[in-house]
Amino acid sequence: MTTLCRWGILGAANIARKNWKAMRLAGNAELVAVASRDRTKAEQFIAECQSEAPFPRTPLACSYEELLERQDVDAVYIPLPTGIRPQWVIRAAQARKHILCEKPCAPSAEQLREMLQACRTHNVHFMDGVMFMHSQRLPLLRRLLEDGQSVGTLRRITSQFSFAAPPEFLRGNIRVQPHLEPLGALGDLGWYNIRLSLWIMKYQWPHTVTGRILTPLQPTPDTVPLEFAAELYFPEQVTASFYCSFITELQQWAHISGTKGSIWIDDFVLPYYGAEVALTVSQPYFRVVGCSFNMEQHSQRYAVREYSDGMPGAQEVNMIRNFSLAIISGRFDPDWSEIAWKTQVVLDACLHSARHEGRPVPVNTSSSVI
Amino acid sequence: MTTLCRWGILGAANIARKNWKAMRLAGNAELVAVASRDRTKAEQFIAECQSEAPFPRTPLACSYEELLERQDVDAVYIPLPTGIRPQWVIRAAQARKHILCEKPCAPSAEQLREMLQACRTHNVHFMDGVMFMHSQRLPLLRRLLEDGQSVGTLRRITSQFSFAAPPEFLRGNIRVQPHLEPLGALGDLGWYNIRLSLWIMKYQWPHTVTGRILTPLQPTPDTVPLEFAAELYFPEQVTASFYCSFITELQQWAHISGTKGSIWIDDFVLPYYGAEVALTVSQPYFRVVGCSFNMEQHSQRYAVREYSDGMPGAQEVNMIRNFSLAIISGRFDPDWSEIAWKTQVVLDACLHSARHEGRPVPVNTSSSVI
Repeated sequence: MTTLCRWGILGAANIARKNWKAMRLAGNAELVAVASRDRTKAEQFIAECQSEAPFPRTPLACSYEELLERQDVDAVYIPLPTGIRPQWVIRAAQARKHILCEKPCAPSAEQLREMLQACRTHNVHFMDGVMFMHSQRLPLLRRLLEDGQSVGTLRRITSQFSFAAPPEFLRGNIRVQPHLEPLGALGDLGWYNIRLSLWIMKYQWPHTVTGRILTPLQPTPDTVPLEFAAELYFPEQVTASFYCSFITELQQWAHISGTKGSIWIDDFVLPYYGAEVALTVSQPYFRVVGCSFNMEQHSQRYAVREYSDGMPGAQEVNMIRNFSLAIISGRFDPDWSEIAWKTQVVLDACLHSARHEGRPVPVNTSSSVI
Repeated sequence: MTTLCRWGILGAANIARKNWKAMRLAGNAELVAVASRDRTKAEQFIAECQSEAPFPRTPLACSYEELLERQDVDAVYIPLPTGIRPQWVIRAAQARKHILCEKPCAPSAEQLREMLQACRTHNVHFMDGVMFMHSQRLPLLRRLLEDGQSVGTLRRITSQFSFAAPPEFLRGNIRVQPHLEPLGALGDLGWYNIRLSLWIMKYQWPHTVTGRILTPLQPTPDTVPLEFAAELYFPEQVTASFYCSFITELQQWAHISGTKGSIWIDDFVLPYYGAEVALTVSQPYFRVVGCSFNMEQHSQRYAVREYSDGMPGAQEVNMIRNFSLAIISGRFDPDWSEIAWKTQVVLDACLHSARHEGRPVPVNTSSSVI
């Protein structure tokens, strides 16, 4: 009986640093090895992270292949670029490693299907790295959505997620290189917007989507989107609109409205950025805006306001902890694959619309990987 | 030399009550007469309004024709339903009355063109009744937009305007009757969203728009829209998205973002609704959200926060005062016609897109009524 989930990190990317810390803090995780194409890079990454958040036993530096061959690794976190992620997810599945996969999971739903089928064939678990799914705010948000009063019957979800990348990012960063990150801002940011909308809708499919590349990297039809807007059309007249961009300053808000009122979420991605704003403008994480408040709503709102995940990075820690617990206990929720799948299928449909003059694209709602 | 602008109201509609009060409070306006198809209705309207906000000389009740024939009326406020407004605007112009016209100005840009041409022919002035154009917040908002720091280079405008109409409204109110209000929520609410976007853009034309009727009154292509979403594409990669609805609870917010930060406007329509929300959640009218604040921005933000139009209805009073002053002084800004025209042309294009599967509709940017 193992009490710790034994992890490997496949790719010494900067984005992996926060999940290193999360593994260190999870309480049920151990980091065995970090793999890079360049062993020196892995060693340097380990030295730096170990000095900040030291594991009792220093993780090893190795190659991707060596990591996947190790018998003392249960699960791998894969922050490799999207363009090369599918092949390594499939190889990790073949090596019987459970997989925590950065988003966007794949360049296309077709490639994600192959990845998820490999996971199924080799009986390994799959989850994407959307950390806000593990925030303790979500059950509170669900309660507001379902209390019949704060929002009532849901009508509209609007969310925007952007950051203003410096010029060197737009020239050199992998997030805008066609072969590495073909989905650009739609994959890097829009993945979260779509996920939030699907979560709110309890993973109902939108029947139709429209999308538009507002700012392309190149003036070609298959360009990397630097800025993207889309609208998802769900059953019963619920719609979700989102905007994501690499060229607009940091914003990560969402607004949810219905027949009785609205919920404003200052920051749906990182509660801690929200918390900083809260200090600045006396702003709760969620706001319920309605024509009138009764005291019950009022106290509920403040309960939400006072809630905190406890410390910076807590949702990443929760993510690693939840994943590790599922592996240790043998009770992994197969819905995680399905959720990633739906997100990618909707994203694909938005991009398809954008590449066809924004025309409405029906979503194949009978599509499933299971 | 007249020191008061002498007004008539054409149509004893409920919406006219707030402008009665505004005329009473403007300081440079006098209300001479109120016309209705039914004289008893006009008399009752006058008795009720006069008891609340009495003019020294009680306005007269009369018919539309009698009002337009009067020599002691300089200007008319026309709150008649959109479907019958064009004919009465044209008749008022022929009678040489200056015109303050409720929005949406006309069922279509073609009809508005005829109305504005009549105004030009007869040398009378025309303004639409968008009261927030006269709020003293706008110069402050413009300063934030242009300070180079709060927003930086503009990228994205998002606004939503809705209220949840009771079932009897959706059955009987004129705002959803095809021959009286064919534009439904798009005309009643979307007119404001479009106007805000055009104002922010200093009346640059969007080159393209897309639109979608999210909830129709009837399942026919020419239905009255109860819920509508659109996106406007401006030069230099600025986009504006809006949503308006008769079936979602009250919201009238806007969010403006760019390369340096964002401005959040809790309520772009009525500062006083905003003020009430402010009391409830300690919320400023405008919020500037950025990654970091310097003290100058901070104090500027609070300057905006503490600003108040002075009293409920102040922007309506400003509107009547501005209009009256322009008539009295003989210095009426011809841009008001052009602004109404652009709003209607953009609205028409959004509706055209919605009636053609949401496909992108180019806007005739060389279009002008002048």
